[in-house]
Amino acid sequence: MESTKKTIIVFSGDFDKVMAAFIIANGAAAMDDEVVMFFTFWGLNALRKDAHVAAPDKTFVQKMFGAMMPRGPKKLSMSKMNFAGMGPKLMQREMKAQNVMSLPELIETAREQGVKFIACTMSMDVMGLTKDELLDDIEYAGVASYLGEADESNVNLFI
Amino acid sequence: MESTKKTIIVFSGDFDKVMAAFIIANGAAAMDDEVVMFFTFWGLNALRKDAHVAAPDKTFVQKMFGAMMPRGPKKLSMSKMNFAGMGPKLMQREMKAQNVMSLPELIETAREQGVKFIACTMSMDVMGLTKDELLDDIEYAGVASYLGEADESNVNLFI
Amino acid sequence: MESTKKTIIVFSGDFDKVMAAFIIANGAAAMDDEVVMFFTFWGLNALRKDAHVAAPDKTFVQKMFGAMMPRGPKKLSMSKMNFAGMGPKLMQREMKAQNVMSLPELIETAREQGVKFIACTMSMDVMGLTKDELLDDIEYAGVASYLGEADESNVNLFI
Repeated sequence: MESTKKTIIVFSGDFDKVMAAFIIANGAAAMDDEVVMFFTFWGLNALRKDAHVAAPDKTFVQKMFGAMMPRGPKKLSMSKMNFAGMGPKLMQREMKAQNVMSLPELIETAREQGVKFIACTMSMDVMGLTKDELLDDIEYAGVASYLGEADESNVNLFI
Repeated sequence: MESTKKTIIVFSGDFDKVMAAFIIANGAAAMDDEVVMFFTFWGLNALRKDAHVAAPDKTFVQKMFGAMMPRGPKKLSMSKMNFAGMGPKLMQREMKAQNVMSLPELIETAREQGVKFIACTMSMDVMGLTKDELLDDIEYAGVASYLGEADESNVNLFI
Repeated sequence: MESTKKTIIVFSGDFDKVMAAFIIANGAAAMDDEVVMFFTFWGLNALRKDAHVAAPDKTFVQKMFGAMMPRGPKKLSMSKMNFAGMGPKLMQREMKAQNVMSLPELIETAREQGVKFIACTMSMDVMGLTKDELLDDIEYAGVASYLGEADESNVNLFI
């Protein structure tokens, strides 16, 4: 029988694209598919804790990236019609009115359903993100690990 | 024999990305592949009719989204070099000079070739788009339906 | 045994997305997978030579596109935090500090590893890019050729 495993590279940190990634991931997990999400570049921001985390060893540029990039799902911007941050709030309100889960709920549900979260270590190094700044209990790996998962999957998306 | 079915998630509403999606879809359909396009988020704008459609039951936010989002393929913006709307017009002109079909023609051809169009009902709810506002004779479904199609396909793209 | 061939459509010309594409391509090639990269629309800019190339037969619009689009990997902008061109320079510096290859090095390594580069001829026509303007010794083909490669592959990404 063919595999029904899915992989999703979450490259984007846009609120709407991260939403789409988690809706697909949760949908597949609900159908008992194995799902692996590989967070890289801006997508890592979806995994950031919202509190400031001390990171004394960062270079100036890494500190700057860290300060300017959004901390977690509640801080992400939309790729269109962001309206200085009002866009995600308005969309969340419509989502709630339509009984669609919020992004933090989608992330929590994905974890409960056993979706595997992998943070790209090379991107973490370049952007200066430390493990302490990201959600607890996720995995850390590089592109070879992603490719190994993708080789076992029948649907592989780059978002 | 392995399936040659293709699925394309059209998440973006950028003129250039929607063009790319339809060029791939038409190319695959011309090779007798089954093709499913799943329109979600901004991608739904490519399916909008250009006329205003009365929708009295919309919330204020849904009306605002509806008024600000482009109505159909002729109104889409480019992801780069949009030049306040001149970009798509210039690109259409070059496309015509090079005998490349326009976006409305590509959409029409895809329909004639039997490409299946599915509008994501959850996105329609959140953005407040009604069936009356979208092209006639398309299908409406959710992520589970997309995943079912993707499981039967050998190429699955997110655009 | 199932194929482990990979295809990547490089649609984006954003520095960070092109980086991601080449990191995946080089990773797969290092694992002895066959890899095909299909450059289309803005992605073609990653293949441009940095010198100006005379192209007397271009239309006005093609000349304008040619002049405004970046010439090669050193000129690409980031999709986020570009800071008027400082973003890619800062990221390159962090990459160097972390022993990550630069984009020109990644491109060169991909070629050395035998990754197949295909430039989309239809996009070249529309944007008025000539073969002289792109890297030497690449292939030129259309969407049918891409689809043929994708049908033989087990991972197909659109970036």
